[in-house]
Amino acid sequence: MSSIYHGAVLRLSVFGQSHAEAVGMTLEGLPAGLPVDLDALQSFLNRRAPGRSDLSTSRREEDSPEFLCGLKDGKTCGAPLTAIIRNRNTRGGDYEQFQNLPRPGHADYTAQLRYGGFQDFAGGGHFSGRLTAPLCIAGGILLQMLEAQGIRVKARIRAIAGIEDDAAFTESVAEKDFPAVSDTVGERMKAAIRSARSEGDSVGGVIECVVSGVPGGLGSPMFDGVENRIAQLAFAVPAVKGIEFGSGFQSAGMRGSENNDPYAIEDGHVVTCTNHAGGVLGGITTGMPVVFRVAVKPTPSIAAPQQTVNLDTMQPETLCVTGRHDPCIVPRAVPVVEAVAAIAVADLILEG
Amino acid sequence: MSSIYHGAVLRLSVFGQSHAEAVGMTLEGLPAGLPVDLDALQSFLNRRAPGRSDLSTSRREEDSPEFLCGLKDGKTCGAPLTAIIRNRNTRGGDYEQFQNLPRPGHADYTAQLRYGGFQDFAGGGHFSGRLTAPLCIAGGILLQMLEAQGIRVKARIRAIAGIEDDAAFTESVAEKDFPAVSDTVGERMKAAIRSARSEGDSVGGVIECVVSGVPGGLGSPMFDGVENRIAQLAFAVPAVKGIEFGSGFQSAGMRGSENNDPYAIEDGHVVTCTNHAGGVLGGITTGMPVVFRVAVKPTPSIAAPQQTVNLDTMQPETLCVTGRHDPCIVPRAVPVVEAVAAIAVADLILEG
Amino acid sequence: MSSIYHGAVLRLSVFGQSHAEAVGMTLEGLPAGLPVDLDALQSFLNRRAPGRSDLSTSRREEDSPEFLCGLKDGKTCGAPLTAIIRNRNTRGGDYEQFQNLPRPGHADYTAQLRYGGFQDFAGGGHFSGRLTAPLCIAGGILLQMLEAQGIRVKARIRAIAGIEDDAAFTESVAEKDFPAVSDTVGERMKAAIRSARSEGDSVGGVIECVVSGVPGGLGSPMFDGVENRIAQLAFAVPAVKGIEFGSGFQSAGMRGSENNDPYAIEDGHVVTCTNHAGGVLGGITTGMPVVFRVAVKPTPSIAAPQQTVNLDTMQPETLCVTGRHDPCIVPRAVPVVEAVAAIAVADLILEG
Amino acid sequence: MSSIYHGAVLRLSVFGQSHAEAVGMTLEGLPAGLPVDLDALQSFLNRRAPGRSDLSTSRREEDSPEFLCGLKDGKTCGAPLTAIIRNRNTRGGDYEQFQNLPRPGHADYTAQLRYGGFQDFAGGGHFSGRLTAPLCIAGGILLQMLEAQGIRVKARIRAIAGIEDDAAFTESVAEKDFPAVSDTVGERMKAAIRSARSEGDSVGGVIECVVSGVPGGLGSPMFDGVENRIAQLAFAVPAVKGIEFGSGFQSAGMRGSENNDPYAIEDGHVVTCTNHAGGVLGGITTGMPVVFRVAVKPTPSIAAPQQTVNLDTMQPETLCVTGRHDPCIVPRAVPVVEAVAAIAVADLILEG
Repeated sequence: MSSIYHGAVLRLSVFGQSHAEAVGMTLEGLPAGLPVDLDALQSFLNRRAPGRSDLSTSRREEDSPEFLCGLKDGKTCGAPLTAIIRNRNTRGGDYEQFQNLPRPGHADYTAQLRYGGFQDFAGGGHFSGRLTAPLCIAGGILLQMLEAQGIRVKARIRAIAGIEDDAAFTESVAEKDFPAVSDTVGERMKAAIRSARSEGDSVGGVIECVVSGVPGGLGSPMFDGVENRIAQLAFAVPAVKGIEFGSGFQSAGMRGSENNDPYAIEDGHVVTCTNHAGGVLGGITTGMPVVFRVAVKPTPSIAAPQQTVNLDTMQPETLCVTGRHDPCIVPRAVPVVEAVAAIAVADLILEG
Repeated sequence: MSSIYHGAVLRLSVFGQSHAEAVGMTLEGLPAGLPVDLDALQSFLNRRAPGRSDLSTSRREEDSPEFLCGLKDGKTCGAPLTAIIRNRNTRGGDYEQFQNLPRPGHADYTAQLRYGGFQDFAGGGHFSGRLTAPLCIAGGILLQMLEAQGIRVKARIRAIAGIEDDAAFTESVAEKDFPAVSDTVGERMKAAIRSARSEGDSVGGVIECVVSGVPGGLGSPMFDGVENRIAQLAFAVPAVKGIEFGSGFQSAGMRGSENNDPYAIEDGHVVTCTNHAGGVLGGITTGMPVVFRVAVKPTPSIAAPQQTVNLDTMQPETLCVTGRHDPCIVPRAVPVVEAVAAIAVADLILEG
Repeated sequence: MSSIYHGAVLRLSVFGQSHAEAVGMTLEGLPAGLPVDLDALQSFLNRRAPGRSDLSTSRREEDSPEFLCGLKDGKTCGAPLTAIIRNRNTRGGDYEQFQNLPRPGHADYTAQLRYGGFQDFAGGGHFSGRLTAPLCIAGGILLQMLEAQGIRVKARIRAIAGIEDDAAFTESVAEKDFPAVSDTVGERMKAAIRSARSEGDSVGGVIECVVSGVPGGLGSPMFDGVENRIAQLAFAVPAVKGIEFGSGFQSAGMRGSENNDPYAIEDGHVVTCTNHAGGVLGGITTGMPVVFRVAVKPTPSIAAPQQTVNLDTMQPETLCVTGRHDPCIVPRAVPVVEAVAAIAVADLILEG
Repeated sequence: MSSIYHGAVLRLSVFGQSHAEAVGMTLEGLPAGLPVDLDALQSFLNRRAPGRSDLSTSRREEDSPEFLCGLKDGKTCGAPLTAIIRNRNTRGGDYEQFQNLPRPGHADYTAQLRYGGFQDFAGGGHFSGRLTAPLCIAGGILLQMLEAQGIRVKARIRAIAGIEDDAAFTESVAEKDFPAVSDTVGERMKAAIRSARSEGDSVGGVIECVVSGVPGGLGSPMFDGVENRIAQLAFAVPAVKGIEFGSGFQSAGMRGSENNDPYAIEDGHVVTCTNHAGGVLGGITTGMPVVFRVAVKPTPSIAAPQQTVNLDTMQPETLCVTGRHDPCIVPRAVPVVEAVAAIAVADLILEG
């Protein structure tokens, strides 16, 4: 199928390869007249951009979107909105070897199977984490739309390398350079990342996202519920290998009497006393915050030698991946998770 | 949106309410000439049907599908295939109270928000677990198609009430009445279910599904990858609150050097030595078994008194849910998980 | 692809074969709480049903839909609405010869190419005009929704056998047994139909549909405009071979100064003085009536001997089609055209 | 809905406004490894480009696409293929008046209704004929794919200003500068265009498209048949107001015995002796050429004074449209019609 997300109202087409002329996106279904604050958008994109901390790849891209169409005088005009980011700092030569020597944990081998050698393997091509930049353009615009309606989408690092940030979620965490609630835990996480890097290795983690201010009654049962949609979008983020809503896998070990969220009245509104459901019952929002967590696997690109096979000779070989890579993509993936949540929730809001 | 699954090639429309005339499904996109073994299908449906063990609800339905169209001489004819199951044993009166007294953990309240009182609340209406019967008709037919191509979709109970079945997966487990690999562990799980029931409570669990024989090279990056599709379908199963592929949430705590699956040659084919990826990289199958697990929350219907609110009076009330309910839906959900996996994989196969 | 119409909000799945157990439809996307007047629906279906005049086939079906789900107390409940019509009066034996001796003008041969002999050829299978019955169930329900909003969808016979009904359109024409504005012209049309039948032949015609009361501003440019959607639906009606909006093919011979519709103010509203545009500019409604015409080819089933080939022997043969057939399907197709217009317009309204 | 065409396999997103930074398109679903001859593509685009004859607007654009992604070494790489054309020669000031003084026959008024004043009215914005340039990029690439499989898509001018080119269709006509089969008739058509222009007026016409070499058995009944798909795409071309297949509206006046195409054997293959069906029966190709005609209305932009209303004051006003416009868009629309036919047929081929 395609790199188009087909929501109830929104359509998002993401295009580009890591080392092609550009990556970009076309977003449709926005109401006309929606203001887009380009400075705020740039700030959001900067949270994802590489080369800004000692914990990420040294590849540095400006990630400044050029809007080709869809805006007039700073507002959406009802036509498709297309923005691109030019790829300037490309080093294709780093990657040519991977066509025949697929990197473990990467899509090199599966791309070869699917595209028969015609794929653009440079920098991971269309599979690259760089494609999350256009995802963030779309998400960043929609976050502005949601914020104007009192809906806030905020994510934090919940765990890295098994180190858990158990502190209660606070929305302000999302604005931190290293978005763990507990700075002490954050420092331990950073140490784990640095330690992995120094050993030519990498670590993964868990990102938690909380969407508050969502009206109840959005979504539907069966295939197009809130969870189905967020999950479909979340697995578009490279390295995501799991998702859970509310108490998720933990609820599997609970009893109904613990996991059921009792109803109560608060300020004249129906609320639940707990939120094990993560704000969703029967695929429809309850009005409580939508809470989900995604599991991010450790960056597959590691400096340590790895066992692979030469697809030409069909002989085993040892591979050493050089090039610039993040020892942990979790910090940079935090705004990406906010972006996919924003896409799903904006679509639910527009569907009404 | 709708209760239609819109795959690359397959379209599945699921309709019905728990206490309406019928539940049913229309499946399209099947090749013409595909044989459907109705006896084998019935056996598959029987694994899901209620009333067959002391661990499930005492509501007993035959779950015998009537095929209205799409078959000619026992084979698909290229036209949409529609089958229905009549609802015979309906007791609508049990449910009328829940419109104003929403059951915690159920969709009563969210349905009220979405449909404004017009929803069919009897038996959970379109939100009922009964809608997994038509899902199993579709899945059961597609399982036959997959089996003819050497693809096997088998699920087991991985955990109930926190009791884990750690034994290595074997395909034959799926055929057991109580599909845990270790019978000893299985007995402990059953005891936990009975214990919960005797206390008017319920328990949840985890189901693991393994699809073996899947060719490599199926799927795509971004929004329509293997994980995105299976996840979208899995969250259609009521009570599913999480999904993970391969090592999933566990991989979030691993290092790249552990989590990456080294490539090797086996019988002239490229394989991976481990399968932390769960058979999927970059949204595309590797040729290794596709492995995923879903978290199933404890049945929300419990006999113990619960706190709710009266939506008419907006006053708190205590609710006692009577009626017939499974103290644990995990055993009956096992074939349903196989069904959704079959739908996703069959669509990938047909897409080619 | 599939027999599912995928509108902006509505989804319509049409299933069944002429001589299968049933034909039917599932309609989704309706707001909950919409009343459905089953008597009015039956009256609408009766306009399409066969066996009611000397001009149509003698096959007589009750065409009484059974609603399986989606309604509660006579109103939509938000869940998919499924209705079926049982096929009672089937005579499969009439059709077996057509698998190897394809009838000219029918889909026998193309079905054989597509489905490789597995198609259900009895009565035309899924290609039968009988599938317009479920189309009319969906359309009939949506017509009621539109009428409640002051939108009227009315069609008339514009031409049969080259005999034109040039009289100005009046909405009441749609209610006539033979819906031509001029009764004199109508009698000439009927005579042409009877004459064709007596000669073992058939005639075609043109149906004109006018949708009044449509708000301006509905639709969109490019692929999902008003014309695109109506056209996609209209070609679902067997025998339709052309469609035009407003002055259509006639406008191709006009000058801009004639064809452009000047704007004026009427009762404080913007109107156009003429309606050559047929109520649509740039894919979006102007607020003037949406007007379109479809060309219906003559019924391909004729008694006169025809030249075909035997697909087994690959030798030419002469075919004489027996069985019950309409010498002209135009009169019965009038409500079907209203139905497809109602589906398109209701979807536009719901999209907003 | 959106400016995305959602075929069985292909997805085409068209974006841009007449006077925005760029117009462009993203095409997905192409097999990897498909060669794209950029010179041949440019030649195809030149047939549509403005400013190349005395019969078209004097606005001159290079229409040279820049490929942003999706190609590697001149072949498709499996990732979305995006190409843009920069808008260089923009004169936005010409158009500002039309927001309040909608031009008859244009989308100015309907855009105002739909987008509430936020639309980009310069040059017609997203409604502009300029959007057919990206349509031709997509179509031009797909034409190359089809040609490599022996499928030829050729269109001609069938009529302009009521002057008919009745000569039998020949494929070579499509390569002419003025693609009428009869040069004599072509000269009369040109004279009619010049005459209209000299009088500040415009003319319309009919384009006929013939797709030969199409295998039989492609397509499906109901909503996704060959006719439905081509029609949905054809109405994306601004100014198209009608479409007919085969004998189309003429067949409505014929008898079954005339309109039915008898089957015969030719070179061991089943053919039809005539092709009134236009190569499609039951929504599925017969193997005979797919033939359709579209009605193109006269260019709405004319120099002659026209009656409109001022949307601010709600008073009638007289409008004189200045600016650069084609007195007849039919010649430039010929390759656009080939493009939409290529998109539909390529999708049918890829669906298989």
